[in-house]
Amino acid sequence: MEFTVNQIAEILNGTVEGDGDIQIKQFGKIQEAQDGDIAFLANLKYERYIYTTGASAVIIGQSFKPEKPISATLIRVDNPYSGFTVLLEAYHRLTYVPRTGVEEPCYLGEDCRIADAVYRGAFSYIGNKSVIGNNVQIYPNVYIGEKCRIGDNSIIYAGAKLYDGTVVGKDCVIHAGAVLGSAGFGFARQEDGSYAAIPQMGHVELEDNVSIGANTVIDCSTLPTDATLVKQGTKIDNLVQLAHNTVVGKDTVIAAQTGISGSTEIGNNCIIGGQVALAGHLKIHNKTTLAGKSGIMKSTKKQGEVLFGLPAYDLRSFMSSYAVFKQLPDINKRLRELEKKS
Amino acid sequence: MEFTVNQIAEILNGTVEGDGDIQIKQFGKIQEAQDGDIAFLANLKYERYIYTTGASAVIIGQSFKPEKPISATLIRVDNPYSGFTVLLEAYHRLTYVPRTGVEEPCYLGEDCRIADAVYRGAFSYIGNKSVIGNNVQIYPNVYIGEKCRIGDNSIIYAGAKLYDGTVVGKDCVIHAGAVLGSAGFGFARQEDGSYAAIPQMGHVELEDNVSIGANTVIDCSTLPTDATLVKQGTKIDNLVQLAHNTVVGKDTVIAAQTGISGSTEIGNNCIIGGQVALAGHLKIHNKTTLAGKSGIMKSTKKQGEVLFGLPAYDLRSFMSSYAVFKQLPDINKRLRELEKKS
Amino acid sequence: MEFTVNQIAEILNGTVEGDGDIQIKQFGKIQEAQDGDIAFLANLKYERYIYTTGASAVIIGQSFKPEKPISATLIRVDNPYSGFTVLLEAYHRLTYVPRTGVEEPCYLGEDCRIADAVYRGAFSYIGNKSVIGNNVQIYPNVYIGEKCRIGDNSIIYAGAKLYDGTVVGKDCVIHAGAVLGSAGFGFARQEDGSYAAIPQMGHVELEDNVSIGANTVIDCSTLPTDATLVKQGTKIDNLVQLAHNTVVGKDTVIAAQTGISGSTEIGNNCIIGGQVALAGHLKIHNKTTLAGKSGIMKSTKKQGEVLFGLPAYDLRSFMSSYAVFKQLPDINKRLRELEKKS
Repeated sequence: MEFTVNQIAEILNGTVEGDGDIQIKQFGKIQEAQDGDIAFLANLKYERYIYTTGASAVIIGQSFKPEKPISATLIRVDNPYSGFTVLLEAYHRLTYVPRTGVEEPCYLGEDCRIADAVYRGAFSYIGNKSVIGNNVQIYPNVYIGEKCRIGDNSIIYAGAKLYDGTVVGKDCVIHAGAVLGSAGFGFARQEDGSYAAIPQMGHVELEDNVSIGANTVIDCSTLPTDATLVKQGTKIDNLVQLAHNTVVGKDTVIAAQTGISGSTEIGNNCIIGGQVALAGHLKIHNKTTLAGKSGIMKSTKKQGEVLFGLPAYDLRSFMSSYAVFKQLPDINKRLRELEKKS
Repeated sequence: MEFTVNQIAEILNGTVEGDGDIQIKQFGKIQEAQDGDIAFLANLKYERYIYTTGASAVIIGQSFKPEKPISATLIRVDNPYSGFTVLLEAYHRLTYVPRTGVEEPCYLGEDCRIADAVYRGAFSYIGNKSVIGNNVQIYPNVYIGEKCRIGDNSIIYAGAKLYDGTVVGKDCVIHAGAVLGSAGFGFARQEDGSYAAIPQMGHVELEDNVSIGANTVIDCSTLPTDATLVKQGTKIDNLVQLAHNTVVGKDTVIAAQTGISGSTEIGNNCIIGGQVALAGHLKIHNKTTLAGKSGIMKSTKKQGEVLFGLPAYDLRSFMSSYAVFKQLPDINKRLRELEKKS
Repeated sequence: MEFTVNQIAEILNGTVEGDGDIQIKQFGKIQEAQDGDIAFLANLKYERYIYTTGASAVIIGQSFKPEKPISATLIRVDNPYSGFTVLLEAYHRLTYVPRTGVEEPCYLGEDCRIADAVYRGAFSYIGNKSVIGNNVQIYPNVYIGEKCRIGDNSIIYAGAKLYDGTVVGKDCVIHAGAVLGSAGFGFARQEDGSYAAIPQMGHVELEDNVSIGANTVIDCSTLPTDATLVKQGTKIDNLVQLAHNTVVGKDTVIAAQTGISGSTEIGNNCIIGGQVALAGHLKIHNKTTLAGKSGIMKSTKKQGEVLFGLPAYDLRSFMSSYAVFKQLPDINKRLRELEKKS
């Protein structure tokens, strides 16, 4: 990277305070940055570092008022975090080289359609009748079963596994080790106490611009006419479990290690923290927030709820009760004293 | 699929109400099914859809009494869910073609015994002295170490990894990315605060008819004379962790993302929900139910307990306390008022 | 194994009570051991078995006083668990044969440096410009991206995936299916509610003697000048999630299925149980203990705290409150009775 502060300010649509001609060479964290670095300050936890940072330039918000002198040149933007993101994005575009070509050995089944500029890494496998779009990158050791369809520009990282019939939209990213389309946990209890497997004959579908984290698992739907579905723009983190027939709406984010049980439907624009568990057959409205580690046992009643707890209910109510929970030994004692008096 | 409703009723040992000559072409969900589809109604949450469904036929229970007219032909069975299962199973048997043959390149070590009709996918690996039974399907990118034994008819999906010495029974299913036999988390704390690895020299054993979910991990036992053991008929979901020397009994089900610590023994016919954690060295009796997200810190005392909470105890008792927990701010206030009066 | 009890006592620096000339053939668990086995007794839960064990010898502590006669020969040591460990270690050294050599086909990129005695398993992949140290074992189906560095004696088990730029120290163990360097969950919310991916341009670094469990995921850092870092001697169990820019200190242990959110720093010598979740941007002091299933929402205040709960606070305080929580229905009733009287 070789930009002046002024050039960066132009990319970010920001204003410069200080020397705009300084050369920026690389990115740095505000607490560790050195000469030639550019950093940002968005989280006020880190405010103290702006007075001591070695960074040559710092991206900050319009409203930030320093309490002490700052040696770095400042670039003022509306949102320093997204400003920094724009800059990373610009740098990424300049330096990113997508992989193309075919590394041998790799395996290609019969009757496949492979579009242009596809990367097929060594030891990758594409089953019969699968269709791969333009510019798709299939990393080494990826397994793609039969009759799968992968949309243009999608990236499937090393060792991901897509069972037969998986459909992936355009501009998706599937991280290493993710599994799409495994048989759901559908077992019917028999009279003798044993379990018979219910055939899981459906598939998984990701719409466009979906991201799936490393080692995340999405089970296929039960019926062949149906799909376990993740809608457009949704981002799912690592080690997440989506059971059979779940539906996740648009532009929803799900943090790591969360699990969603069978047939539950999540709305659009939801925010789901890490290690959340949802029971089966629930309906979660749009714009719901489920705080990390919550256990969701019931459907939501309306949009925009913020839930926490085990079982979860309104977050503020939970936290009010939890504040009293911490005093319970004392409450018990006070109650006993009253009982003695009465 | 091309069956009449009458033919399906015969398969299910059910009775037809309505036109039994209608042709059924595929499966559908009751809320979305269309002409030519067959659906089922088991969960009463979905009852309202039976009056509006586009399905040509619906499988329902003997005791179901419609409140309004239903246009679909009905097939009455004792248990609509298992009836539907039987039908899916029948359809699956008609359409399922197991993979056979050898895709090159794949790797076969020395002194292996490979029985008949085995599928060995491209980039699969079988280490020295391993024994593979009849009709076993080994998908691409599977790793099987040395001295493993895989029983007849078992299926090992793409990218599963079996360390040296793993034993898999007959009719087992191991889903993509599962790991069997990794070294358990056995470390001995040294005087200087560092940890020395305790060699984990045992293996994993699955009895017959066991199912292991995608990306689940089962650690090997510590001693070479011992095994981490999953008994006959038990079904384990995705992303589950079984630590070294755990034993899981027969016909037990364990839902996704549950973790069982070292040396804990689970009985037969247990039902363990998702994201449950069990401490080490516990003994859980037969027919125990552990509700999802519970934290189990103690052994059970008898069969048939139903536990919940963190730490877990009797589910009903927990829920009674939790109902009061929700009122704690109010209780605190009432207590203060009493104190003022007294 | 063919040792006398006397020889084993010498290895363990222990003293023999009983016949020291007995031949030991293998290891056994105290409750199942048979003639020719050696077992140990460390956990007093298992004490009753020492009076009935079929083991020829048992390793026990100096202070153990039998209540009944014991037929096995005893080897007294300071710490029977670590004594047994030393013995396993000795046996492991005698029997362990590291893999070496190259199995074809495997993939080696350009400009790599591969040191001596490296094992490269079939279908393993090493990207351009990567550097592999002496005696490194790379199991089948492992993916190592470009510009990675793997230190001497490290073992990377089957199907682990290392993204570009991953750095692994000496004497590390990475278990099957682990993913190092996947893009962190960094998405910037746009005004229309959609999310734009923030390029994650950094990498993962493991210092020496680190162990990473099966199917664990460690995301790369955001900035190219930075790393998600696991320091020397730290042991991380299976299915753990470390988000971008986390730092885990020296000689810390993290049990299975725990998740650490972005930019959180864990100190040295911490003990973190299973299924713990930590929020982002926290600082956890050295020697902190986080009990299993805790949800950590705040930084610690000092060394040596022991935390539990959701949200977590002091474990003893939590348990005191939880004891009263169990009585809440009764407390509610007693409060009502007082109200009636007043």
